[in-house]
Amino acid sequence: MAKLAQLIDSEVFLAFATYTTIVLLKMMLLSIITAYVRMTRKAFCNPEDTAKFGKGENAKKYLRTDEDVERVRRCHLNDLENIVPFIGIGLLYTLSGPAVSTALLHFRIFVVARILHTIVYLTAVPQPSRALTWAAGYAVTISMAYRLLTSVWYL
Amino acid sequence: MAKLAQLIDSEVFLAFATYTTIVLLKMMLLSIITAYVRMTRKAFCNPEDTAKFGKGENAKKYLRTDEDVERVRRCHLNDLENIVPFIGIGLLYTLSGPAVSTALLHFRIFVVARILHTIVYLTAVPQPSRALTWAAGYAVTISMAYRLLTSVWYL
Amino acid sequence: MAKLAQLIDSEVFLAFATYTTIVLLKMMLLSIITAYVRMTRKAFCNPEDTAKFGKGENAKKYLRTDEDVERVRRCHLNDLENIVPFIGIGLLYTLSGPAVSTALLHFRIFVVARILHTIVYLTAVPQPSRALTWAAGYAVTISMAYRLLTSVWYL
Repeated sequence: MAKLAQLIDSEVFLAFATYTTIVLLKMMLLSIITAYVRMTRKAFCNPEDTAKFGKGENAKKYLRTDEDVERVRRCHLNDLENIVPFIGIGLLYTLSGPAVSTALLHFRIFVVARILHTIVYLTAVPQPSRALTWAAGYAVTISMAYRLLTSVWYL
Repeated sequence: MAKLAQLIDSEVFLAFATYTTIVLLKMMLLSIITAYVRMTRKAFCNPEDTAKFGKGENAKKYLRTDEDVERVRRCHLNDLENIVPFIGIGLLYTLSGPAVSTALLHFRIFVVARILHTIVYLTAVPQPSRALTWAAGYAVTISMAYRLLTSVWYL
Repeated sequence: MAKLAQLIDSEVFLAFATYTTIVLLKMMLLSIITAYVRMTRKAFCNPEDTAKFGKGENAKKYLRTDEDVERVRRCHLNDLENIVPFIGIGLLYTLSGPAVSTALLHFRIFVVARILHTIVYLTAVPQPSRALTWAAGYAVTISMAYRLLTSVWYL
Protein backbone atom coordinates (compact mmCIF):
# COMPACT_ATOMS: atom_id res chain seq x y z
CA MET A 1 0.00 0.00 0.00
CA ALA A 2 2.89 2.38 0.65
CA LYS A 3 3.66 2.79 -3.03
CA LEU A 4 0.09 3.26 -4.08
CA ALA A 5 -0.41 5.85 -1.37
CA GLN A 6 2.62 7.76 -2.64
CA LEU A 7 1.74 7.40 -6.26
CA ILE A 8 -1.90 8.29 -6.19
CA ASP A 9 -2.73 9.59 -2.77
CA SER A 10 -6.45 9.73 -3.21
CA GLU A 11 -9.52 8.12 -1.77
CA VAL A 12 -11.15 8.30 -5.20
CA PHE A 13 -8.44 6.03 -6.61
CA LEU A 14 -8.84 3.48 -3.80
CA ALA A 15 -12.60 3.47 -4.35
CA PHE A 16 -12.23 3.09 -8.13
CA ALA A 17 -9.84 0.15 -7.62
CA THR A 18 -12.26 -1.54 -5.21
CA TYR A 19 -15.42 -1.09 -7.30
CA THR A 20 -13.69 -2.01 -10.57
CA THR A 21 -12.35 -5.22 -9.05
CA ILE A 22 -15.79 -6.15 -7.71
CA VAL A 23 -17.57 -5.57 -11.01
CA LEU A 24 -14.87 -7.47 -12.95
CA LEU A 25 -15.11 -10.43 -10.55
CA LYS A 26 -18.86 -10.38 -11.08
CA MET A 27 -18.28 -10.49 -14.85
CA MET A 28 -15.79 -13.35 -14.46
CA LEU A 29 -18.40 -15.30 -12.50
CA LEU A 30 -20.41 -15.51 -15.72
CA SER A 31 -17.68 -17.71 -17.26
CA ILE A 32 -18.25 -20.21 -14.46
CA ILE A 33 -22.03 -19.97 -14.84
CA THR A 34 -21.76 -20.56 -18.61
CA ALA A 35 -19.66 -23.69 -18.02
CA TYR A 36 -22.09 -24.89 -15.34
CA VAL A 37 -25.19 -24.38 -17.49
CA ARG A 38 -23.48 -26.04 -20.48
CA MET A 39 -22.82 -29.12 -18.33
CA THR A 40 -26.25 -29.35 -16.72
CA ARG A 41 -28.02 -28.73 -20.09
CA LYS A 42 -25.48 -30.88 -21.97
CA ALA A 43 -25.12 -28.25 -24.72
CA PHE A 44 -21.65 -27.68 -26.16
CA CYS A 45 -19.97 -25.93 -29.12
CA ASN A 46 -16.72 -27.83 -29.54
CA PRO A 47 -16.55 -31.52 -30.57
CA GLU A 48 -13.64 -32.04 -28.13
CA ASP A 49 -15.94 -31.05 -25.25
CA THR A 50 -18.39 -33.87 -25.94
CA ALA A 51 -15.80 -36.66 -26.26
CA LYS A 52 -16.60 -37.91 -22.75
CA PHE A 53 -20.15 -38.79 -23.88
CA GLY A 54 -18.87 -41.40 -26.34
CA LYS A 55 -18.09 -41.28 -30.05
CA GLY A 56 -19.88 -40.51 -33.29
CA GLU A 57 -23.60 -39.73 -33.32
CA ASN A 58 -23.89 -40.30 -29.58
CA ALA A 59 -21.56 -37.38 -28.83
CA LYS A 60 -22.72 -35.23 -31.74
CA LYS A 61 -26.20 -34.72 -30.32
CA TYR A 62 -24.67 -32.62 -27.51
CA LEU A 63 -23.27 -30.12 -30.04
CA ARG A 64 -26.30 -27.88 -29.88
CA THR A 65 -27.51 -24.44 -28.96
CA ASP A 66 -29.42 -24.19 -25.70
CA GLU A 67 -31.58 -21.20 -24.83
CA ASP A 68 -30.36 -21.09 -21.20
CA VAL A 69 -26.70 -21.15 -22.27
CA GLU A 70 -27.34 -18.40 -24.83
CA ARG A 71 -28.97 -16.25 -22.16
CA VAL A 72 -25.86 -16.42 -19.96
CA ARG A 73 -23.66 -15.65 -22.97
CA ARG A 74 -25.74 -12.60 -23.93
CA CYS A 75 -25.52 -11.39 -20.34
CA HIS A 76 -21.73 -11.85 -20.43
CA LEU A 77 -21.36 -9.95 -23.71
CA ASN A 78 -23.58 -7.14 -22.40
CA ASP A 79 -21.27 -6.93 -19.39
CA LEU A 80 -18.22 -6.61 -21.64
CA GLU A 81 -19.93 -3.92 -23.73
CA ASN A 82 -20.74 -1.87 -20.64
CA ILE A 83 -17.86 -2.58 -18.24
CA VAL A 84 -15.11 -1.80 -20.78
CA PRO A 85 -16.32 1.83 -21.22
CA PHE A 86 -16.80 2.14 -17.44
CA ILE A 87 -13.20 1.10 -16.76
CA GLY A 88 -11.68 3.20 -19.55
CA ILE A 89 -13.66 6.36 -18.83
CA GLY A 90 -13.73 5.70 -15.06
CA LEU A 91 -9.94 5.44 -14.75
CA LEU A 92 -9.40 8.72 -16.59
CA TYR A 93 -12.24 10.34 -14.62
CA THR A 94 -10.61 9.16 -11.38
CA LEU A 95 -7.32 10.76 -12.41
CA SER A 96 -9.07 14.04 -13.28
CA GLY A 97 -9.59 14.74 -9.58
CA PRO A 98 -13.36 14.61 -8.92
CA ALA A 99 -14.85 15.17 -5.45
CA VAL A 100 -14.82 11.95 -3.39
CA SER A 101 -18.57 12.01 -2.70
CA THR A 102 -19.48 12.52 -6.38
CA ALA A 103 -17.11 9.80 -7.53
CA LEU A 104 -18.37 7.32 -4.92
CA LEU A 105 -21.95 8.00 -6.03
CA HIS A 106 -21.02 7.16 -9.64
CA PHE A 107 -19.10 3.98 -8.78
CA ARG A 108 -21.75 2.69 -6.37
CA ILE A 109 -24.68 3.19 -8.73
CA PHE A 110 -22.76 1.52 -11.58
CA VAL A 111 -21.73 -1.56 -9.59
CA VAL A 112 -25.16 -2.05 -8.01
CA ALA A 113 -26.85 -1.54 -11.41
CA ARG A 114 -24.63 -4.16 -13.09
CA ILE A 115 -25.15 -6.70 -10.29
CA LEU A 116 -28.93 -6.20 -10.51
CA HIS A 117 -28.73 -6.37 -14.32
CA THR A 118 -27.10 -9.80 -14.11
CA ILE A 119 -29.67 -11.12 -11.63
CA VAL A 120 -32.57 -9.72 -13.64
CA TYR A 121 -31.14 -11.07 -16.92
CA LEU A 122 -30.36 -14.58 -15.67
CA THR A 123 -33.71 -15.02 -13.91
CA ALA A 124 -35.68 -13.45 -16.81
CA VAL A 125 -37.54 -10.90 -14.68
CA PRO A 126 -40.22 -9.16 -16.84
CA GLN A 127 -39.26 -5.91 -18.54
CA PRO A 128 -38.61 -3.02 -17.99
CA SER A 129 -36.37 -4.29 -15.13
CA ARG A 130 -33.49 -5.20 -17.41
CA ALA A 131 -33.79 -2.03 -19.47
CA LEU A 132 -33.75 0.09 -16.31
CA THR A 133 -30.74 -1.58 -14.68
CA TRP A 134 -28.88 -1.33 -18.00
CA ALA A 135 -29.80 2.35 -18.37
CA ALA A 136 -28.62 3.18 -14.84
CA GLY A 137 -25.12 1.84 -15.57
CA TYR A 138 -25.08 3.52 -18.99
CA ALA A 139 -26.08 6.88 -17.50
CA VAL A 140 -23.27 6.69 -14.92
CA THR A 141 -20.68 6.19 -17.66
CA ILE A 142 -22.10 9.07 -19.73
CA SER A 143 -22.05 11.32 -16.67
CA MET A 144 -18.36 10.49 -15.97
CA ALA A 145 -17.52 11.04 -19.66
CA TYR A 146 -19.17 14.47 -19.57
CA ARG A 147 -17.26 15.49 -16.44
CA LEU A 148 -14.03 14.17 -17.90
CA LEU A 149 -14.38 15.84 -21.30
CA THR A 150 -15.17 19.22 -19.75
CA SER A 151 -11.98 19.02 -17.67
CA VAL A 152 -9.43 17.46 -20.06
CA TRP A 153 -10.67 18.47 -23.55
CA TYR A 154 -7.58 18.45 -25.82
CA LEU A 155 -8.02 17.50 -29.48
CA MET B 1 -8.06 19.52 -13.21
CA ALA B 2 -5.53 20.56 -10.57
CA LYS B 3 -4.89 17.01 -9.46
CA LEU B 4 -4.60 15.58 -12.94
CA ALA B 5 -2.18 18.36 -13.90
CA GLN B 6 -0.02 17.54 -10.88
CA LEU B 7 -0.27 13.81 -11.36
CA ILE B 8 0.39 13.54 -15.03
CA ASP B 9 1.48 16.92 -16.32
CA SER B 10 1.42 16.05 -19.97
CA GLU B 11 -0.45 17.08 -23.07
CA VAL B 12 -0.20 13.50 -24.33
CA PHE B 13 -2.22 12.30 -21.35
CA LEU B 14 -4.92 14.94 -21.85
CA ALA B 15 -5.13 14.00 -25.54
CA PHE B 16 -5.32 10.27 -24.73
CA ALA B 17 -8.12 10.91 -22.23
CA THR B 18 -10.07 12.98 -24.77
CA TYR B 19 -9.72 10.58 -27.72
CA THR B 20 -10.37 7.47 -25.61
CA THR B 21 -13.56 8.99 -24.21
CA ILE B 22 -14.76 9.94 -27.70
CA VAL B 23 -14.14 6.48 -29.15
CA LEU B 24 -15.77 4.77 -26.14
CA LEU B 25 -18.85 7.00 -26.43
CA LYS B 26 -19.03 6.07 -30.12
CA MET B 27 -18.90 2.38 -29.13
CA MET B 28 -21.61 2.92 -26.50
CA LEU B 29 -23.82 4.51 -29.17
CA LEU B 30 -24.00 1.08 -30.81
CA SER B 31 -25.96 -0.25 -27.79
CA ILE B 32 -28.61 2.38 -28.48
CA ILE B 33 -28.58 1.60 -32.21
CA THR B 34 -28.97 -2.13 -31.50
CA ALA B 35 -32.00 -1.45 -29.28
CA TYR B 36 -33.48 0.91 -31.88
CA VAL B 37 -33.06 -1.54 -34.78
CA ARG B 38 -34.47 -4.39 -32.65
CA MET B 39 -37.59 -2.33 -32.01
CA THR B 40 -38.13 -1.09 -35.57
CA ARG B 41 -37.45 -4.59 -37.01
CA LYS B 42 -39.35 -6.29 -34.15
CA ALA B 43 -36.57 -8.88 -33.70
CA PHE B 44 -35.72 -9.92 -30.15
CA CYS B 45 -33.74 -12.60 -28.30
CA ASN B 46 -35.40 -12.75 -24.90
CA PRO B 47 -39.02 -13.90 -24.37
CA GLU B 48 -39.47 -11.21 -21.69
CA ASP B 49 -38.78 -8.53 -24.34
CA THR B 50 -41.71 -9.60 -26.51
CA ALA B 51 -44.31 -9.75 -23.73
CA LYS B 52 -45.78 -6.39 -24.81
CA PHE B 53 -46.81 -7.95 -28.14
CA GLY B 54 -49.21 -10.35 -26.45
CA LYS B 55 -48.90 -13.95 -25.31
CA GLY B 56 -48.11 -17.33 -26.80
CA GLU B 57 -47.54 -17.69 -30.54
CA ASN B 58 -48.27 -14.04 -31.18
CA ALA B 59 -45.27 -12.94 -29.13
CA LYS B 60 -43.08 -15.88 -30.14
CA LYS B 61 -42.82 -14.80 -33.77
CA TYR B 62 -40.78 -11.77 -32.68
CA LEU B 63 -38.09 -14.03 -31.19
CA ARG B 64 -36.04 -14.12 -34.35
CA THR B 65 -32.72 -13.20 -35.88
CA ASP B 66 -32.76 -10.14 -38.12
CA GLU B 67 -29.94 -9.37 -40.56
CA ASP B 68 -29.93 -5.63 -39.74
CA VAL B 69 -29.72 -6.32 -36.00
CA GLU B 70 -26.89 -8.83 -36.56
CA ARG B 71 -24.99 -6.25 -38.60
CA VAL B 72 -25.06 -3.74 -35.72
CA ARG B 73 -24.02 -6.47 -33.29
CA ARG B 74 -21.06 -7.52 -35.45
CA CYS B 75 -20.00 -3.89 -35.69
CA HIS B 76 -20.22 -3.58 -31.89
CA LEU B 77 -18.14 -6.73 -31.32
CA ASN B 78 -15.55 -5.55 -33.84
CA ASP B 79 -15.32 -2.30 -31.86
CA LEU B 80 -14.72 -4.21 -28.64
CA GLU B 81 -12.03 -6.35 -30.29
CA ASN B 82 -10.19 -3.27 -31.55
CA ILE B 83 -10.83 -0.62 -28.91
CA VAL B 84 -9.76 -2.81 -25.96
CA PRO B 85 -6.20 -3.23 -27.36
CA PHE B 86 -6.10 0.49 -28.27
CA ILE B 87 -6.95 1.51 -24.69
CA GLY B 88 -4.62 -1.02 -23.04
CA ILE B 89 -1.64 -0.38 -25.29
CA GLY B 90 -2.48 3.33 -25.71
CA LEU B 91 -2.52 4.04 -21.96
CA LEU B 92 0.87 2.39 -21.45
CA TYR B 93 2.23 4.13 -24.59
CA THR B 94 0.99 7.47 -23.21
CA LEU B 95 2.84 6.86 -19.95
CA SER B 96 6.04 5.94 -21.83
CA GLY B 97 6.52 9.60 -22.78
CA PRO B 98 6.14 9.83 -26.57
CA ALA B 99 6.43 13.14 -28.46
CA VAL B 100 3.12 15.05 -28.40
CA SER B 101 2.90 15.34 -32.20
CA THR B 102 3.53 11.60 -32.75
CA ALA B 103 1.03 10.61 -30.10
CA LEU B 104 -1.63 12.96 -31.47
CA LEU B 105 -1.14 11.52 -34.95
CA HIS B 106 -1.75 8.00 -33.59
CA PHE B 107 -4.83 8.93 -31.55
CA ARG B 108 -6.39 10.99 -34.36
CA ILE B 109 -5.97 8.33 -37.04
CA PHE B 110 -7.38 5.65 -34.73
CA VAL B 111 -10.48 7.60 -33.71
CA VAL B 112 -11.25 8.79 -37.24
CA ALA B 113 -10.69 5.26 -38.60
CA ARG B 114 -13.09 3.71 -36.06
CA ILE B 115 -15.79 6.33 -36.68
CA LEU B 116 -15.51 5.73 -40.44
CA HIS B 117 -15.50 1.95 -39.83
CA THR B 118 -18.81 2.20 -38.00
CA ILE B 119 -20.41 4.35 -40.71
CA VAL B 120 -19.11 2.09 -43.49
CA TYR B 121 -20.21 -1.07 -41.64
CA LEU B 122 -23.72 0.10 -40.77
CA THR B 123 -24.46 1.48 -44.24
CA ALA B 124 -22.88 -1.54 -45.99
CA VAL B 125 -20.55 0.48 -48.24
CA PRO B 126 -18.89 -1.89 -50.77
CA GLN B 127 -15.50 -3.34 -49.88
CA PRO B 128 -12.60 -2.60 -49.48
CA SER B 129 -13.86 0.42 -47.49
CA ARG B 130 -14.49 -1.56 -44.32
CA ALA B 131 -11.25 -3.51 -44.63
CA LEU B 132 -9.27 -0.28 -45.06
CA THR B 133 -10.83 1.58 -42.12
CA TRP B 134 -10.31 -1.51 -39.96
CA ALA B 135 -6.67 -1.83 -41.08
CA ALA B 136 -5.94 1.84 -40.32
CA GLY B 137 -7.01 1.44 -36.69
CA TYR B 138 -5.18 -1.87 -36.41
CA ALA B 139 -1.95 -0.37 -37.78
CA VAL B 140 -2.09 2.49 -35.25
CA THR B 141 -2.30 0.02 -32.34
CA ILE B 142 0.58 -2.07 -33.74
CA SER B 143 2.69 1.06 -34.15
CA MET B 144 2.06 2.12 -30.53
CA ALA B 145 2.82 -1.42 -29.34
CA TYR B 146 6.14 -1.37 -31.22
CA ARG B 147 7.14 1.99 -29.71
CA LEU B 148 6.07 0.80 -26.27
CA LEU B 149 7.89 -2.53 -26.38
CA THR B 150 11.13 -0.92 -27.54
CA SER B 151 11.01 1.47 -24.58
CA VAL B 152 9.74 -0.71 -21.70
CA TRP B 153 10.83 -4.26 -22.63
CA TYR B 154 11.12 -6.18 -19.33
CA LEU B 155 10.33 -9.90 -19.33
CA MET C 1 11.60 6.32 -21.23
CA ALA C 2 12.68 9.23 -19.06
CA LYS C 3 9.11 10.29 -18.33
CA LEU C 4 7.88 6.83 -17.56
CA ALA C 5 10.82 6.25 -15.23
CA GLN C 6 9.98 9.44 -13.37
CA LEU C 7 6.28 8.79 -13.31
CA ILE C 8 6.24 5.20 -12.24
CA ASP C 9 9.71 4.16 -11.24
CA SER C 10 9.01 0.50 -10.85
CA GLU C 11 10.08 -2.74 -12.46
CA VAL C 12 6.59 -4.12 -11.84
CA PHE C 13 5.14 -1.43 -14.07
CA LEU C 14 7.62 -2.10 -16.88
CA ALA C 15 6.84 -5.82 -16.64
CA PHE C 16 3.08 -5.20 -16.65
CA ALA C 17 3.41 -2.99 -19.74
CA THR C 18 5.47 -5.64 -21.54
CA TYR C 19 3.25 -8.62 -20.73
CA THR C 20 0.01 -6.73 -21.39
CA THR C 21 1.25 -5.62 -24.80
CA ILE C 22 2.28 -9.18 -25.69
CA VAL C 23 -1.06 -10.69 -24.69
CA LEU C 24 -3.01 -7.95 -26.51
CA LEU C 25 -0.96 -8.46 -29.68
CA LYS C 26 -1.72 -12.18 -29.42
CA MET C 27 -5.43 -11.35 -29.14
CA MET C 28 -5.21 -9.01 -32.14
CA LEU C 29 -3.62 -11.83 -34.16
CA LEU C 30 -6.98 -13.62 -33.93
CA SER C 31 -8.57 -10.88 -36.09
CA ILE C 32 -6.09 -11.73 -38.84
CA ILE C 33 -6.68 -15.48 -38.38
CA THR C 34 -10.47 -14.97 -38.59
CA ALA C 35 -10.08 -13.05 -41.87
CA TYR C 36 -7.69 -15.69 -43.22
CA VAL C 37 -9.99 -18.62 -42.34
CA ARG C 38 -13.02 -16.77 -43.75
CA MET C 39 -11.18 -16.40 -47.06
CA THR C 40 -9.82 -19.94 -47.31
CA ARG C 41 -13.20 -21.44 -46.26
CA LYS C 42 -15.14 -18.86 -48.32
CA ALA C 43 -17.56 -18.21 -45.43
CA PHE C 44 -18.70 -14.64 -44.88
CA CYS C 45 -21.34 -12.70 -42.92
CA ASN C 46 -21.77 -9.51 -44.91
CA PRO C 47 -23.18 -9.41 -48.48
CA GLU C 48 -20.64 -6.70 -49.40
CA ASP C 49 -17.80 -9.15 -48.60
CA THR C 50 -18.95 -11.66 -51.22
CA ALA C 51 -19.39 -9.16 -54.08
CA LYS C 52 -16.09 -10.26 -55.65
CA PHE C 53 -17.54 -13.75 -56.24
CA GLY C 54 -20.18 -12.39 -58.63
CA LYS C 55 -23.80 -11.40 -58.15
CA GLY C 56 -27.08 -12.92 -56.99
CA GLU C 57 -27.23 -16.59 -56.03
CA ASN C 58 -23.60 -17.16 -56.96
CA ALA C 59 -22.39 -14.77 -54.26
CA LYS C 60 -25.14 -15.65 -51.77
CA LYS C 61 -23.88 -19.19 -51.22
CA TYR C 62 -20.77 -17.76 -49.51
CA LEU C 63 -22.93 -16.09 -46.83
CA ARG C 64 -22.72 -19.02 -44.48
CA THR C 65 -21.51 -20.15 -41.08
CA ASP C 66 -18.37 -22.26 -41.09
CA GLU C 67 -17.32 -24.36 -38.11
CA ASP C 68 -13.63 -23.37 -38.43
CA VAL C 69 -14.47 -19.67 -38.55
CA GLU C 70 -16.76 -20.02 -35.53
CA ARG C 71 -13.98 -21.75 -33.61
CA VAL C 72 -11.62 -18.80 -34.14
CA ARG C 73 -14.38 -16.37 -33.19
CA ARG C 74 -15.14 -18.26 -29.95
CA CYS C 75 -11.44 -18.23 -29.12
CA HIS C 76 -11.33 -14.46 -29.75
CA LEU C 77 -14.37 -13.80 -27.55
CA ASN C 78 -12.90 -15.98 -24.79
CA ASP C 79 -9.75 -13.86 -24.99
CA LEU C 80 -11.76 -10.67 -24.59
CA GLU C 81 -13.66 -12.12 -21.62
CA ASN C 82 -10.41 -13.06 -19.87
CA ILE C 83 -7.93 -10.38 -20.96
CA VAL C 84 -10.20 -7.44 -20.05
CA PRO C 85 -10.32 -8.46 -16.34
CA PHE C 86 -6.57 -9.19 -16.42
CA ILE C 87 -5.77 -5.69 -17.68
CA GLY C 88 -8.22 -3.90 -15.38
CA ILE C 89 -7.30 -5.80 -12.23
CA GLY C 90 -3.63 -6.14 -13.28
CA LEU C 91 -3.11 -2.40 -13.73
CA LEU C 92 -4.56 -1.60 -10.32
CA TYR C 93 -2.60 -4.50 -8.79
CA THR C 94 0.59 -3.13 -10.37
CA LEU C 95 -0.06 0.29 -8.83
CA SER C 96 -0.69 -1.27 -5.39
CA GLY C 97 3.04 -2.02 -5.09
CA PRO C 98 3.42 -5.82 -5.07
CA ALA C 99 6.84 -7.52 -4.80
CA VAL C 100 8.55 -7.76 -8.20
CA SER C 101 9.00 -11.53 -8.04
CA THR C 102 5.33 -12.16 -7.12
CA ALA C 103 4.06 -9.84 -9.81
CA LEU C 104 6.31 -11.39 -12.47
CA LEU C 105 5.05 -14.85 -11.53
CA HIS C 106 1.46 -13.70 -12.03
CA PHE C 107 2.08 -11.98 -15.37
CA ARG C 108 4.17 -14.85 -16.77
CA ILE C 109 1.68 -17.58 -15.89
CA PHE C 110 -1.18 -15.55 -17.35
CA VAL C 111 0.52 -14.79 -20.65
CA VAL C 112 1.82 -18.34 -21.13
CA ALA C 113 -1.61 -19.76 -20.20
CA ARG C 114 -3.42 -17.54 -22.74
CA ILE C 115 -0.93 -18.36 -25.52
CA LEU C 116 -1.35 -22.07 -24.81
CA HIS C 117 -5.14 -21.62 -24.61
CA THR C 118 -5.19 -20.16 -28.11
CA ILE C 119 -3.01 -22.95 -29.56
CA VAL C 120 -5.05 -25.65 -27.82
CA TYR C 121 -8.36 -24.05 -28.90
CA LEU C 122 -7.46 -23.50 -32.55
CA THR C 123 -5.96 -26.98 -33.01
CA ALA C 124 -8.80 -28.68 -31.06
CA VAL C 125 -6.53 -30.57 -28.66
CA PRO C 126 -8.65 -33.02 -26.59
CA GLN C 127 -9.93 -31.83 -23.21
CA PRO C 128 -9.05 -31.08 -20.44
CA SER C 129 -6.19 -29.11 -22.09
CA ARG C 130 -8.36 -26.11 -22.92
CA ALA C 131 -10.09 -26.15 -19.53
CA LEU C 132 -6.72 -26.24 -17.74
CA THR C 133 -5.11 -23.41 -19.72
CA TRP C 134 -8.26 -21.33 -19.22
CA ALA C 135 -8.28 -22.08 -15.47
CA ALA C 136 -4.62 -21.09 -15.08
CA GLY C 137 -5.26 -17.61 -16.50
CA TYR C 138 -8.47 -17.27 -14.49
CA ALA C 139 -6.70 -18.24 -11.24
CA VAL C 140 -3.98 -15.61 -11.83
CA THR C 141 -6.59 -12.86 -12.16
CA ILE C 142 -8.43 -14.03 -9.04
CA SER C 143 -5.15 -14.08 -7.12
CA MET C 144 -4.32 -10.50 -8.18
CA ALA C 145 -7.86 -9.39 -7.32
CA TYR C 146 -7.52 -10.90 -3.83
CA ARG C 147 -4.17 -9.15 -3.23
CA LEU C 148 -5.58 -5.90 -4.55
CA LEU C 149 -8.79 -5.96 -2.51
CA THR C 150 -6.94 -6.70 0.72
CA SER C 151 -4.69 -3.66 0.14
CA VAL C 152 -7.09 -1.03 -1.28
CA TRP C 153 -10.50 -1.98 0.15
CA TYR C 154 -12.57 1.24 0.22
CA LEU C 155 -16.32 1.03 -0.32
